[in-house]
Amino acid sequence: MIAVDAMGGDYAPEQVVLGALLAAKGGIPVALFGFQEQLCSLLFSHDIHWKTYPIKIFNVTQQVAMSESPVVAVRRKPDSSLVRAIRSVKDGVCAAMVSAGNTGAVAVASMFVLKMQSGVSRPALAGVLQTKKDPVLFLDIGANADCKAEHLVQFAQMADAYSKRVLLQKRPAIGLLANGHEEGKGSLLVKNVHVLLKKDEKLNFIGNIEPDAVLAGEADVVVTDGFSGNIFIKTVEALVNVFGVTNYEIARSGALLLGVNGCVVVSHGNADAHVIKNAISFAHKSSYNRERLYGTQKESFRGVST
Amino acid sequence: MIAVDAMGGDYAPEQVVLGALLAAKGGIPVALFGFQEQLCSLLFSHDIHWKTYPIKIFNVTQQVAMSESPVVAVRRKPDSSLVRAIRSVKDGVCAAMVSAGNTGAVAVASMFVLKMQSGVSRPALAGVLQTKKDPVLFLDIGANADCKAEHLVQFAQMADAYSKRVLLQKRPAIGLLANGHEEGKGSLLVKNVHVLLKKDEKLNFIGNIEPDAVLAGEADVVVTDGFSGNIFIKTVEALVNVFGVTNYEIARSGALLLGVNGCVVVSHGNADAHVIKNAISFAHKSSYNRERLYGTQKESFRGVST
Repeated sequence: MIAVDAMGGDYAPEQVVLGALLAAKGGIPVALFGFQEQLCSLLFSHDIHWKTYPIKIFNVTQQVAMSESPVVAVRRKPDSSLVRAIRSVKDGVCAAMVSAGNTGAVAVASMFVLKMQSGVSRPALAGVLQTKKDPVLFLDIGANADCKAEHLVQFAQMADAYSKRVLLQKRPAIGLLANGHEEGKGSLLVKNVHVLLKKDEKLNFIGNIEPDAVLAGEADVVVTDGFSGNIFIKTVEALVNVFGVTNYEIARSGALLLGVNGCVVVSHGNADAHVIKNAISFAHKSSYNRERLYGTQKESFRGVST
Repeated sequence: MIAVDAMGGDYAPEQVVLGALLAAKGGIPVALFGFQEQLCSLLFSHDIHWKTYPIKIFNVTQQVAMSESPVVAVRRKPDSSLVRAIRSVKDGVCAAMVSAGNTGAVAVASMFVLKMQSGVSRPALAGVLQTKKDPVLFLDIGANADCKAEHLVQFAQMADAYSKRVLLQKRPAIGLLANGHEEGKGSLLVKNVHVLLKKDEKLNFIGNIEPDAVLAGEADVVVTDGFSGNIFIKTVEALVNVFGVTNYEIARSGALLLGVNGCVVVSHGNADAHVIKNAISFAHKSSYNRERLYGTQKESFRGVST
């Protein structure tokens, strides 16, 4: 069963509920966390036979707003749809969780409730970017606006493990997003991370990578801080929308929060029902991938070389 | 006369020399700084009558590479085409300078040779981005990979003055590039700058702005640090190239280095002759704009509210 934060997102709960209904009709069992009466009424308005599909409703009394401070929101709202949905993963009631709500709050709640995997200090949001060549695993796209060098190194290690074990790439080429491909270019953060990644012999680090090379698919994994990564992804999305083409399909539907003990998928804030449906399907698939990633010993992250 | 760093850029000196020749044929007097014999031979190969156009050659003995550390390169290479071209502006021999070379080195050499305008601690590279609505003045696109809050405030003040006096906008709307439009979103840097810009009553600060709103032309000026700004601009460029459309023409031809005592235009590293020609033309126009910006008292920057 996939937990869905029905109250999170710009078009919640309307579009989230409809998306969940579509997923349930497609055969994926869904647990909707939200204001019960409102959810029932929405489901009923879409389909009077909604109860024949695998949908469960879990009533909550609180909601986290997009503009709230993540830490404060998560602390003050233990009965929010967001926190409750994540708790259902912790408790083993659900296999994965989807939210289109406040990304920072999803990351914080995941850290508090699910806890970090051993060897990882921050979770990172990883999206898959389709390019002309192979898809690129790109992170962090928004969980950490401020990062230290060691965080980016951990992101590279987590993505390396994911890429190898889930995407089945033998020796993923890892690039570091920068304003110049030459070594020595970049912010202080980039320069420090470059040195550390170069030293890590377990990684196939190919050096700094500029946006055009990212979009050309020259790396399998691209690592950056959550601020720059978010600007990059949103710029790509904005232009893809402007040009009305889908050559560069971003994982608008869902990005995976790597580094926590549980499968958490963050969907786009302005997700509509179609996007939510895809995010639920992605979460469903990802919860199976987790077993490939961590084996049976779910609570430790073996991909991180500490 | 416009000074041109003939040895700077991925396709220097070949494309730079050809671009300068085209500009000179268009009536703009050009001073080429580079290895004299090589430049003469290139000019001759393009047009045996090149001496009939307003082109002067200044021989130099050094060249700054794209990968060199800016500060070291500028200190060690006083007779490089880059430093000599900037010095010609300082000495009043040329009205403006164009380089497609190492952006960091152009910024550092401009600071060393031309000195900062009073009240400004860092120069910023400002590009003009065409949108569906009005053009947007976007800075910093690459002069400072690491910025402090006060730098970004100064960038906003410089851009405000430029927008008012050169682009003739009455009350330019100033946005701060961020990963969320809500106040409180962003990196620590963005949060601090937000507070400072909000306090500055002389500025029409409209708050945080996300990439889609930048591209929709919702601000007249967009301020960010040189790392994020460079990633944004390069992502836009990469996608514009991929889609083969020119709806979003970036000022590939030339970005203006604001904050130094002199008119310095930075062109794209991979500029071809056509781009160089446009950059020279932009520098020519910008040198006139400077008078509108600073009046006759060229050495002080009156736009900054200190």
